[in-house]
Amino acid sequence: MSTTRSRDGRVRIAVAGLGRIGALHAENLAGRVPHAQLVRVIDVDEDRARAMGERLGVAWSTDTDSLWTDDVEAVVVATPTPTHPEMVRACAAAGKAVFCEKPLGLTEQETLDALEAVERQGVALQVGMHRRFDPDTRRAKELATRGELGEVYSFRTSLRDMLPQPMTYIRQSGSFFVDVTIHDLDLARFLVGEVVEVSVFGASVSDPEYAALGTVDHAAIVVRFANGALGLIDNSRIAGYGYEASTEVVGSTAAVRIGGSQRTNVEVLSEATSRTDHVTDFLGRFTEAYRAELEAFVESVRGSQPVGVTGWDALAAFTLAQACDRAFTTGRPVPLTHEVVDGRIRYLLPEDAAEPQHA
Amino acid sequence: MSTTRSRDGRVRIAVAGLGRIGALHAENLAGRVPHAQLVRVIDVDEDRARAMGERLGVAWSTDTDSLWTDDVEAVVVATPTPTHPEMVRACAAAGKAVFCEKPLGLTEQETLDALEAVERQGVALQVGMHRRFDPDTRRAKELATRGELGEVYSFRTSLRDMLPQPMTYIRQSGSFFVDVTIHDLDLARFLVGEVVEVSVFGASVSDPEYAALGTVDHAAIVVRFANGALGLIDNSRIAGYGYEASTEVVGSTAAVRIGGSQRTNVEVLSEATSRTDHVTDFLGRFTEAYRAELEAFVESVRGSQPVGVTGWDALAAFTLAQACDRAFTTGRPVPLTHEVVDGRIRYLLPEDAAEPQHA
Amino acid sequence: MSTTRSRDGRVRIAVAGLGRIGALHAENLAGRVPHAQLVRVIDVDEDRARAMGERLGVAWSTDTDSLWTDDVEAVVVATPTPTHPEMVRACAAAGKAVFCEKPLGLTEQETLDALEAVERQGVALQVGMHRRFDPDTRRAKELATRGELGEVYSFRTSLRDMLPQPMTYIRQSGSFFVDVTIHDLDLARFLVGEVVEVSVFGASVSDPEYAALGTVDHAAIVVRFANGALGLIDNSRIAGYGYEASTEVVGSTAAVRIGGSQRTNVEVLSEATSRTDHVTDFLGRFTEAYRAELEAFVESVRGSQPVGVTGWDALAAFTLAQACDRAFTTGRPVPLTHEVVDGRIRYLLPEDAAEPQHA
Amino acid sequence: MSTTRSRDGRVRIAVAGLGRIGALHAENLAGRVPHAQLVRVIDVDEDRARAMGERLGVAWSTDTDSLWTDDVEAVVVATPTPTHPEMVRACAAAGKAVFCEKPLGLTEQETLDALEAVERQGVALQVGMHRRFDPDTRRAKELATRGELGEVYSFRTSLRDMLPQPMTYIRQSGSFFVDVTIHDLDLARFLVGEVVEVSVFGASVSDPEYAALGTVDHAAIVVRFANGALGLIDNSRIAGYGYEASTEVVGSTAAVRIGGSQRTNVEVLSEATSRTDHVTDFLGRFTEAYRAELEAFVESVRGSQPVGVTGWDALAAFTLAQACDRAFTTGRPVPLTHEVVDGRIRYLLPEDAAEPQHA
Repeated sequence: MSTTRSRDGRVRIAVAGLGRIGALHAENLAGRVPHAQLVRVIDVDEDRARAMGERLGVAWSTDTDSLWTDDVEAVVVATPTPTHPEMVRACAAAGKAVFCEKPLGLTEQETLDALEAVERQGVALQVGMHRRFDPDTRRAKELATRGELGEVYSFRTSLRDMLPQPMTYIRQSGSFFVDVTIHDLDLARFLVGEVVEVSVFGASVSDPEYAALGTVDHAAIVVRFANGALGLIDNSRIAGYGYEASTEVVGSTAAVRIGGSQRTNVEVLSEATSRTDHVTDFLGRFTEAYRAELEAFVESVRGSQPVGVTGWDALAAFTLAQACDRAFTTGRPVPLTHEVVDGRIRYLLPEDAAEPQHA
Repeated sequence: MSTTRSRDGRVRIAVAGLGRIGALHAENLAGRVPHAQLVRVIDVDEDRARAMGERLGVAWSTDTDSLWTDDVEAVVVATPTPTHPEMVRACAAAGKAVFCEKPLGLTEQETLDALEAVERQGVALQVGMHRRFDPDTRRAKELATRGELGEVYSFRTSLRDMLPQPMTYIRQSGSFFVDVTIHDLDLARFLVGEVVEVSVFGASVSDPEYAALGTVDHAAIVVRFANGALGLIDNSRIAGYGYEASTEVVGSTAAVRIGGSQRTNVEVLSEATSRTDHVTDFLGRFTEAYRAELEAFVESVRGSQPVGVTGWDALAAFTLAQACDRAFTTGRPVPLTHEVVDGRIRYLLPEDAAEPQHA
Repeated sequence: MSTTRSRDGRVRIAVAGLGRIGALHAENLAGRVPHAQLVRVIDVDEDRARAMGERLGVAWSTDTDSLWTDDVEAVVVATPTPTHPEMVRACAAAGKAVFCEKPLGLTEQETLDALEAVERQGVALQVGMHRRFDPDTRRAKELATRGELGEVYSFRTSLRDMLPQPMTYIRQSGSFFVDVTIHDLDLARFLVGEVVEVSVFGASVSDPEYAALGTVDHAAIVVRFANGALGLIDNSRIAGYGYEASTEVVGSTAAVRIGGSQRTNVEVLSEATSRTDHVTDFLGRFTEAYRAELEAFVESVRGSQPVGVTGWDALAAFTLAQACDRAFTTGRPVPLTHEVVDGRIRYLLPEDAAEPQHA
Repeated sequence: MSTTRSRDGRVRIAVAGLGRIGALHAENLAGRVPHAQLVRVIDVDEDRARAMGERLGVAWSTDTDSLWTDDVEAVVVATPTPTHPEMVRACAAAGKAVFCEKPLGLTEQETLDALEAVERQGVALQVGMHRRFDPDTRRAKELATRGELGEVYSFRTSLRDMLPQPMTYIRQSGSFFVDVTIHDLDLARFLVGEVVEVSVFGASVSDPEYAALGTVDHAAIVVRFANGALGLIDNSRIAGYGYEASTEVVGSTAAVRIGGSQRTNVEVLSEATSRTDHVTDFLGRFTEAYRAELEAFVESVRGSQPVGVTGWDALAAFTLAQACDRAFTTGRPVPLTHEVVDGRIRYLLPEDAAEPQHA
């Protein structure tokens, strides 16, 4: 038991992977998250690890072994997606609580394996579905939970990037739907409920390269919910005007809208126009959400509250994203069933679709 | 030549059909439309015709023959849809300019027959696609036309009624898409361009009676445009919170959004909330659009400008609505082709889809 | 009795003075105001009178005598302010209803003389306090009248021009407060109630010429109401960013805000900003108010409703504006009393201030 | 030198006074302010001190002597205003950096004495003018500093409480202007520049008790700036509808508006209204500002940036508030001069106004 811990009760956390998101997590843990103490950062890139460690005044290394020491209680995994399952399993084996960026794995099986390891070791696991911690989204959820919307009639959400990713990223980013739509699918479940069918329409408008790579720069996803309601998701890799993450839930007695892309509450008027600033990326839009998800994680490690987004929620969103992938590939709606066992939700793709490689 | 006409140059107009829309047109023509002179109102219901005539200080009758007199130059047709083709043909035969509510007919053939009569007689014909005259929509069109949006990447529009129609209306209203979505399809063409595919998802959430009648209370329509862009249309017969007609066009350089459901620019603050009033129906939302479409019609009769919405535009929207109907019935995307001959657009449904009953 | 009148019951109106406001009134009367028939326009400038008459298809002349004929029932007076009293008296003498732009006169005495003539002849008189007919202002008034605001605690309004008037206009425009603030003072009375004190602070910021002329380009007026509430009025001749006419009334149970300077409900997004258009002048802001005030006038001439803004209301606003002038000149608060006799309100300036010329 | 300090470079801070603001500061320092380590909380109320200490896992006491130990580098002073000068002097004497809530003292002399002590000991001092750290206010300042507004023509700000303070508080709160308006006066200096005259209008509308106590529940303050521009400040102790802190600066080329009273970006629509939540107090409005001012303080202690709000700025706002008090008492405008010596600003009240009791 460390002296520091005994004095102020902070959870000692390491961050693994210092890309854009990992660096943000490290910054937040270094002073914006109560009860958290950042103790170590690691990255395969030594310069990057050293720079961040020195800037934040914490230990650094390029070696994951440094995570399995006694002064680390929890690990934030922000390494590349293919390494997620192994990292999660290693954390579980070492008895470390783990916060892992989405998705947990690139296949359902490796995700299940990681979840099994986590449950066997009894460590806390939270997945980085940050939108559930956006204050506006929480407010909408609260209204829905309190029944103020009545029965939900429709759902609509837009997730759009302002600046396109470089084609080098697109080439290796895998499924558009696992990369982008997964957040909207999780949001749909969070705000409305379970999904029974997805249909997908993709388009490659801004650059023929997307089509050449078999992917899209725009997508429209139509979701059917278990209660019969329809959901519309639209995604764009290149909205141009700004970053967009807006949502609407219409119910029988009320509707709720989440905008939130305004950068400040400052209005500038000139030449007969009134202007407000728009955010340009997810960091601008979800600053507080990224901070709050770590606060929730820390509190769950401290035992003050249950985990905010479980691995099963993450798997559900992943399977729904895979269903979108199949719907896009086949040009047909994909029906889905789900089962809940001991509070663990599992989505099942249809039998005939289960082995698309044989189709 | 009438004395009045010679003195102030107003176009002498009769209104046929005094239901909700016909009554609105009569009111507007009786004093809110420059260069228009309402001279007569007719309705099959004598009480209704008399009441309106007396209130507005104009002649009234129950008889369409009263329209074919010399003191009527133009007729506004707001009678029930099944009578539209015959009314339009009769107006054409009598040499009267005609403004007809949408749709022009319930089949493509009778629409074409009416258009042929109109063109043969050389009378002006405008169809009641009022949204093209909404000031906000015109502003969006102007920005798109000037190229300020760049290439269009996506389109989205919502058309939602607040209060459901009575089931007696639903039972006889025919296709949901011809009744409701037709306006959005026209708007899509107006703001973005021609359509090459429609896919439709319907739901019956608020009342099982909709499903029992083979219709829906909610619909999501995914449109593919000729340039590859995707469009999303959502419709509801029962939005509950208010009437909605909002639209968004996202282009490569800018996006434009049309809200406009706020009833006034008055904000009321109390008990830590800020409230604005929402419109409750299309009359509240499109007050100026309904007035402006008549002003445009009158000006085209006077020869000062071309007709605002031609019969061919109306037919195009109708055929697109029929394609939606087929997409809904078959559960499959419906591809569309179109041809333009002498400035007249015609949409063609696919051969194989032409006889879905044999499928 | 004219045939036209007997057929459609429209009030036959002439417009005198075809400057910016007179021209607007003529346009509105020629087709946007129910039950109104524009029959004649006059202006001392023959070209201007002819052009307008020909454009609107009505008789025109340069001679006020043409107003006193049987085919004119009502006159809209939009001639230069110094001619108002004589025009109103002449209309009254000829038995014509009269709508007169504000102010009714340049002194209290000539205003009273004109009002006496109007009352003696029993003709209808409405003064052009258009803001009372702004839909947003009416909605605020309705809320206040229904008691939804509770007791009024404070009032605030801004009236700002975008583009400065030319100095030639400033030189001859007389009192800033009679020219500009008079509308806000009328609004204060309309929305809150009677005034017991005004204090004035003027500034000449944009151009020293204002100060050299003994006038201002900005003013702040603090008003005390009879119930003890404070009101803040700010005016500018050169707001730069756009035209502004916004108002706030805060009460014990609710507050109401009137914005309304947005030109359309269209939002344009580009380069990480969201823009809306702002109006640039009073015509853009008060389009409907200018139309509606004439509709109300016409209805009062037809006897369907009482006059919307009486000459006594206009005199009250004028006297308050004069009190502002005195407060500005003396640098001291000016207390005011008022009396209501037979429904006619009269504001009284304090004795010691009654003869400023001897000060 | 403590191990902790050497490891993570955090500034060790104590909070003195655990009322509403002190408790907020302690919460922020315990986990939301990078590079800060809360080490101790004190309050004269033992229960309060113990509860907070235990909750945040830090030492607590009722004794200020516990502040003068080696493990405290900086003190946040949130004790009652009368104790501020003595606390600041004691901190300075002990070589502790100090963050003190406004005002620094209840007279100019004791404020000057405290400032002298601070400067003599060379400790950092920041005063709690939190609005300078509000992100929206900073954005407005940035625009003004960059010259985007052009020359400032007018300034307007509203500061209004939703719920009235209890009369027991009002009775002992001293000057309304030192208690409330001081923030607006500081904001006026921050956004526009130095002030040359204040005029004050007070009202007691909601409860005669305010007048009986010689104070007000509403005030309007008219400010003249050195460049000739006018500023309007309105304050209320009981706005009813919500907490308000909104500001507008109009310049020759652009205007900027700060709203920011919306609690979330969530819009709830029902029954034909659209609602957003309004904040109810300064904690809701300035959550981030209160956090950011401490972050700035900590960084200045660490030497990474100069102090955000100096004692001289605080004294300037205090003297302006006193000038308002005098303007209110005398009913006359109070002219002000100021001098800047070695970067220290001092406002001077006029000689003749210095002894109003002899007037």
